[in-house]
This record gives sequence, C-alpha cells and structure tokens, in this order.
Amino acid sequence: MTMTALDRLRYIAVAALCAAALPAFGDALPSWNDGEAKSRIVEFVDAVTDPRNERFVPAKRRIAVFDNDGTLWSEQPYYFQFRFAMDRLAERAARDPSILDSDVLRAAARGDLEGALADGEHGLLEIVAASHSGMDVDTFQTRARAWLDTAEHPSTGRRYPEMVYQPMLELLRYLRDEGFRTYIVSGGGVDFIRAFAEDVYGIPPYQVIGSIGRASYELVDGEPAIMKDPGIFFVDDKAGKPLAILGHVGLRPIFAAGNSDGDFEMLEWTTAGEGARFGLLVHHTDADREWAYDRGSEVGRLERGLDEGPGRGWLIVDMKRDWARIYPYDP
Amino acid sequence: MTMTALDRLRYIAVAALCAAALPAFGDALPSWNDGEAKSRIVEFVDAVTDPRNERFVPAKRRIAVFDNDGTLWSEQPYYFQFRFAMDRLAERAARDPSILDSDVLRAAARGDLEGALADGEHGLLEIVAASHSGMDVDTFQTRARAWLDTAEHPSTGRRYPEMVYQPMLELLRYLRDEGFRTYIVSGGGVDFIRAFAEDVYGIPPYQVIGSIGRASYELVDGEPAIMKDPGIFFVDDKAGKPLAILGHVGLRPIFAAGNSDGDFEMLEWTTAGEGARFGLLVHHTDADREWAYDRGSEVGRLERGLDEGPGRGWLIVDMKRDWARIYPYDP
Repeated sequence: MTMTALDRLRYIAVAALCAAALPAFGDALPSWNDGEAKSRIVEFVDAVTDPRNERFVPAKRRIAVFDNDGTLWSEQPYYFQFRFAMDRLAERAARDPSILDSDVLRAAARGDLEGALADGEHGLLEIVAASHSGMDVDTFQTRARAWLDTAEHPSTGRRYPEMVYQPMLELLRYLRDEGFRTYIVSGGGVDFIRAFAEDVYGIPPYQVIGSIGRASYELVDGEPAIMKDPGIFFVDDKAGKPLAILGHVGLRPIFAAGNSDGDFEMLEWTTAGEGARFGLLVHHTDADREWAYDRGSEVGRLERGLDEGPGRGWLIVDMKRDWARIYPYDP
Repeated sequence: MTMTALDRLRYIAVAALCAAALPAFGDALPSWNDGEAKSRIVEFVDAVTDPRNERFVPAKRRIAVFDNDGTLWSEQPYYFQFRFAMDRLAERAARDPSILDSDVLRAAARGDLEGALADGEHGLLEIVAASHSGMDVDTFQTRARAWLDTAEHPSTGRRYPEMVYQPMLELLRYLRDEGFRTYIVSGGGVDFIRAFAEDVYGIPPYQVIGSIGRASYELVDGEPAIMKDPGIFFVDDKAGKPLAILGHVGLRPIFAAGNSDGDFEMLEWTTAGEGARFGLLVHHTDADREWAYDRGSEVGRLERGLDEGPGRGWLIVDMKRDWARIYPYDP
C-alpha cells in the first residue's frame, strides 16, 4: 500500500492537530523530586484519565479541591488575609480613630499581632468585621488587589502572591490539562481569594469556595450594589468544607489537597467515595526554605491528618524531601 | 500568484477547522416567531460575541442566569417541587402516620392543595421540612429522580420534565454555543433541581444555584454522609438572587431571564452593570397552550416587572405572540 501525497498531508494535518490537543510531552511536575509522592500522583491521574482503565473517571466528574492557606501559598507567621485585615483597619482608623473601640482593634491597627490575637476567635471576627465591611464587593476587591500588589512579607520581603508553591501551581495545571476542574476550598474569605485566584492560580471566581461574610443588596444613589456587612454567614472550615463543596459543586470530588486538620473532613469525604480517590496533605517540614510546623501549631495545625492519613491511604507530601523548589522565585 | 497543491490542502484543512469551531448555520431559535423578541436576542448575542463590536464581552464574562419555575418550565397549578413534597410526605406518612402532626401536614399528605397552603409560608416550610429532610443528599436525589420519571401533571398528563419550554431550551443552547456559561438561579431547592437539570437543560450541577436547606456532615456506620436537616439555610428569591449569584459565580451576569417579581432584583442588578446587558421576562399570556397569569397571581406574580421592565429596557416575552411552540412535545 502506498501513501498518496494527499494521504501524507492528511496524516500530517491530523498528527499536528492531535499534538495540539494533547498535553505537552515531558514532565508536568518538574518541581517535584522523583519519588513516591510524584509517582503516586502521576499514577492516579494516568488511571482516571485512561478509558481502558477500570479506575477511569469521566471528565465531568473529575473535580479536584484545594485548600489555600498552607496548601497553595504560605501561612506563616500569620494567615496573609489576617495581615490584610490589620493593614486595612489601620488605614480606616487613620481617617476615623473612633472605630478602634476595643483593645483588640487598637492592637490590630498598630500592627501588634500578639495583641490582635489575644482575644481568640472573637477578636479575630471583630477585626475582620471592622476591616472587611461597609463597602461593596467590587470596592473591597480593588483594595485587596492594591494590597496584594504592594504589601511585603515580613521575613521574605516578597509580595504575598509570590509566596505560592511552585509544585502546587504545576499540580493545578497538570490536573486541568488532564480534564479536571480545580477548585479552591478555603477558610479564608471568598471575596478576598477571588481578587487574585485567577491571576495567580488560573482558577476563575466561580471555582473559588470560601468563608462568606454577611452581605446585603442595596440601592446606592439608585444603583444596585452588593454591600459587605459585619458578621460571618458561613465558615468554610472542618465539616463546613464538605458541606460547602456539595452546596457549590453538587458533586463529590475525587481529589482533595490540604495541609491542616481543618481539611480533615474534606479529605475524609472525598476519599470515602467509590472508585478512584486521592487525598493529599502538605506537611510543612522545611524550616530552611519555608517553615516547619505541624502538631501544636497555632496556624495550620496538623495532628489528626498525620496520625490517620497514612492509614487512610492519603499521600503525606514532605516539602523538604518531595519539592525541588518551593516558590516560583527560588533558583 | 498560483496556489500549489499544498496551499490548497492547507486552505481546505483550515476552512474545515474553522467551520467545526463555529456554531451551526441556520436558525438557532426555530421555536421563536420572527419579531422583536427574537431579533433583539440575536442582535444582543451578535454584538457581545463580535470582537470588532464596541459592545463585545470576552467569553469568560458571558454569564447568563435563568430562573427556573415559570421561566424554564411551567409552574401551574403549583410549583412542581411542591407537588413532589406533598407526594413524598404521603409516602412517609404511609409508613409512619405520626409524622402528620398538624392540619397543614395532614392536608398535604392527602393531596389537599388548598389545605396545604392554608397556613401560608409557615405551612410551606413545614411541608418541605417534613418531606425533604432526614436522608442524605444522594438518597434525596434518587427519590426526586424517581418521582420526576413517573409523576404526571394533573391537567396535561405529562411528566413534569416534559413541561419545559422548547424556546428556552433553544435559547440556553444558543447562548452556550456562543460562549456563555448558563446558570439556573431558582427559589426552588438546589438539590431538587440538580437531580434533573443536566439531563433536561444541559446545565451541570455546579451551575445550579437555588434555595439551600440546612445540612450536616455525619458519619453513618463510619461512612461520611451529608444529611438534609429540617429548616432553610438560604432562600434564593428576590434580593437573595443577586447575593447568591455573586456568592456563587463571583461575577455579575450580562444576561438574566425570569418571569416573576421574585426575579426583579436579579434583572435589576444584571442590567445595571456597565456595557452590554440583557434582561428578559417571560409573560404568561397563553391560556390555550399554557396558562395566562401575571398581576395578583398566587404563583409567579408579575406586577413590578410589567410596570417597570419596559422602561428599563427589559424584553417582555409574550408567550402567545412570540413562541411558535411551548413544549417539546407540541406539534
């Protein structure tokens, strides 16, 4: 059988098209060291995307959920959004000092972290209420973006959105290239995360799930606006995460990644489903390149996940061992 | 300049590719009569999808939201989900009559519509609580699908999912073919609508927004489950609709369709945005082929929308005049 010129051209055209439709050849996870972590991820993705594999999952069911703080970007020495809240509060207080009507608020406005946290969760909510409300969502996000563009992290001197984990950026892209829908499921505020998630993670606003503040629909000078009010409507943490995922997505994920016990129920629910499932916990083990913390940490405490995760088949990613690079700006 | 054989083949290949990427030729809205309604819709879609048009909107901002009851399917003589609630209640009461501990519940279980509605909204919530809770979301949706597959509408004898509006099915598909993301934004329960929206409307679970019942995350025999509890967490109606859309999608839609004053704020917010915007109200004017109702109707009351809609530039669709067919099964 001989190929005509036309056949040959058809062949070339089809091959070119197929190449364009396929993910790039080569290593999709170059910042992951070779080893068990990387190979388990790749093995899972290969299985669920191969129609001949018994673990195959149709693309529309390939839902992957990611915690944000400590899973996609750093969370030390404080949740970055908390620093934003303190800075916003200081700005507002500069114009109207009377808003600082408690010790916690006064501490927060002068940047005293210890004082701001002295009253525990109650004080935290007070700070968020005083810094995140009284404006519409658009205005809030414009301010959040301005802060993210300029504020510097106290120990690295980097802007906060630079402190995302390069290996996780690669994992997000890899999963999307393989037909997954990637979601953020964070205890952080949804409006805050949406201000940067598309630019930084490639995750559009409608795939960001987070804690939700109270809001109201108002006419301001005849124009409708959605105003951020004081108070929390929903806390997207612990058992709230599976509830929020089912409420938002309507499907149970097949892949979940977190780093703290606040993600336990999300991983538990995800990996208990039938068929192929993947649970991943980022273990902060690298005091030189990032931070090392787990049990007993105030931020991102990881205890139950370390104790029970391996027995449940969850992958515990050891940052020091498994990641060749931490941040995109690392050499 | 002459074309080589290779040039010609390249040309053919590119033309074939482009044709495949473009929407089908011909009338995308065959069940819409020619006239102002149809031409305004097509003109809007042409404008926002044409990069050379000053009203162009990038695909990722092309969000279209649709009310469900009375906008995508009928809602007479009652909201279909309410009939489901009554039927479910009767089933449960057959096994355990003690659950019927009020006049409203007893009326609902025997199919007495008037008695079931006698106590207004309070009674309604009672019926929903007694029929929609005490099971996990998967089980609930399995039951909803079983009901949708078998229950018959009292006057048409059709199954409820057959009573969707053919012109709106065409509109949904048309918008999606033109790069829109189509969402349902309904006062109905989100778990109920998700049980059929993908099959019937081509709308996946994560693009259904609705009222939300209370739920809890529980371990049942060691397996995690999301249980539907009595009580309502969020009512997706009136000013709740814009709040829910921004909370879920994170973007303001550019196209909104409804049929009652419960959709007023959704259309108001959508069409007040900058740039190209479209608001559409389905006016039920066809007592022969569907139902005719608006002002003063118990179900789907439309007053403010009729009074203010035209002045706001909203399209009022006259079902009798504008729709050549109502249901897919119509000749």
